[in-house]
Amino acid sequence: GHGMVRVPVYAGQARTGKVDGHATPGATLTRPGALMIDAAHGFAYPALELAMSNLPGMARAQGIAVAGVNRSHHAGVAGWFVERLAQDGLVAMMFANTPAAMAPTGGRQALFGTNPIAFAAPVADELPMVVDLSLSTVARGKILAAAQKGEPIPEGWATDANGSPTTDAQAALGGTMQPMGGAKGAALALMVEVLAAGLTGATLAADAPDFFAPDGPPPGTGQLLLAIDPEALGGGARIAELAAMFAGNGEARLPGRRRQRLSDAARTDGLEIDKELLRKIEATGQD
Amino acid sequence: GHGMVRVPVYAGQARTGKVDGHATPGATLTRPGALMIDAAHGFAYPALELAMSNLPGMARAQGIAVAGVNRSHHAGVAGWFVERLAQDGLVAMMFANTPAAMAPTGGRQALFGTNPIAFAAPVADELPMVVDLSLSTVARGKILAAAQKGEPIPEGWATDANGSPTTDAQAALGGTMQPMGGAKGAALALMVEVLAAGLTGATLAADAPDFFAPDGPPPGTGQLLLAIDPEALGGGARIAELAAMFAGNGEARLPGRRRQRLSDAARTDGLEIDKELLRKIEATGQD
Repeated sequence: GHGMVRVPVYAGQARTGKVDGHATPGATLTRPGALMIDAAHGFAYPALELAMSNLPGMARAQGIAVAGVNRSHHAGVAGWFVERLAQDGLVAMMFANTPAAMAPTGGRQALFGTNPIAFAAPVADELPMVVDLSLSTVARGKILAAAQKGEPIPEGWATDANGSPTTDAQAALGGTMQPMGGAKGAALALMVEVLAAGLTGATLAADAPDFFAPDGPPPGTGQLLLAIDPEALGGGARIAELAAMFAGNGEARLPGRRRQRLSDAARTDGLEIDKELLRKIEATGQD
Repeated sequence: GHGMVRVPVYAGQARTGKVDGHATPGATLTRPGALMIDAAHGFAYPALELAMSNLPGMARAQGIAVAGVNRSHHAGVAGWFVERLAQDGLVAMMFANTPAAMAPTGGRQALFGTNPIAFAAPVADELPMVVDLSLSTVARGKILAAAQKGEPIPEGWATDANGSPTTDAQAALGGTMQPMGGAKGAALALMVEVLAAGLTGATLAADAPDFFAPDGPPPGTGQLLLAIDPEALGGGARIAELAAMFAGNGEARLPGRRRQRLSDAARTDGLEIDKELLRKIEATGQD
């Protein structure tokens, strides 16, 4: 969902001006522990890199630090940012809002995106643990695929336009996604919406143009990154103790391990890219 | 679950020394934005009040502040603490670990408690919104009640001792609780365990004596409180915009509203307390 498939999408938006490919993000240190970043309707990545380069020093000096990003765009793999902070010895969290896809419990109008939460923590003598999840039961792409094949979807994935749970993929596309864990997931999506957009002044999910359409106004969504220095609290030795309890516990694995293995393999063996997609990417800018 | 019913439990533990009723918590400001609190195996509340009295000033000066608590005990209603910080104009989060009840995905041994997440944010001209949820599908009390009545439990509540999902309440009591939202909920429970215990040096869920038994060693669990000053980021005006979108959106209500109404009613009309419980409380310390 966040890989090479986005290249033609990003490029198309840069061409129409939906995203400003030449924007320079600006950062303001508003307090010793708080950085406010204006992504200036460019890609999220230069803005997030500004956060990444400032947060470690701030967190080590203050114990904890926060960076808010507004007038931003699709943030890609949230786990990638927090993992890098954990590699630097910090416990990190990231919240991002995305265009509206889920309604509050009891509601019909979508007010929240699939709103990812990412979390990473350093584990002594090991790679960091990395949690990276969206708050919808499944990705919207799975519903789209079922609708295209004319297949039904499982209960718990989506509601129709009237807010009723549905197994009809076509009806689901006109309705909203269901949050993971029901009302609790919806409440967490509200929390992420407040942290990533309410707090940063970014465009709320309900008002955000989508991340895929080639034109229209910029999404203007937001992100919030937190970093905590374990040395400012208990030192974090118990994190490795907890991680060690996964070994021999049935088939349990620390979150992030599978992706870290795949990432290593890709560095050695290269990446497989769909031929059609590669043709599309190679043709970008040549028409 | 967190009300008057805990009075005899707390009192019994104070008597046996499982909790030190006379403990004085100690706080160390380790960095300008970080406070480490030793609850000294007393009740959690004096330790959490130390956090509550320090966090607002720290958050306003630094933009964000964190307080970690270790050698602590049952934290009660996590939403109550974050709501008070939101009444003070701050966006607040609280994480607490609790004795082991849930296994990681694929695992058999419980490594996480039901690990609550609480979140509150100020809403201009209104009461704060307050999210307060545990990461298990349901409270353990519901499984206990079903077992006592000899009734089955719905799918998704619990697994048996072999880690297999079960609808047998009795088998569920020998197994583990299921996290809300499946693997995503388990990942969030790990995040809370790291934040509340791994980071603070508190007793991990897997090693924590339970909160109910009258004797045994102190639980020694942990809590983590975060407070962010909206003025250090985007100002928070969008939070009220988001809250306003709940009105007229089907039956959607802002999280916290029902409890705030009940709390107001209790202030006017008083509380109803079960007679048997009241007798138990009145008898406390008289035997």
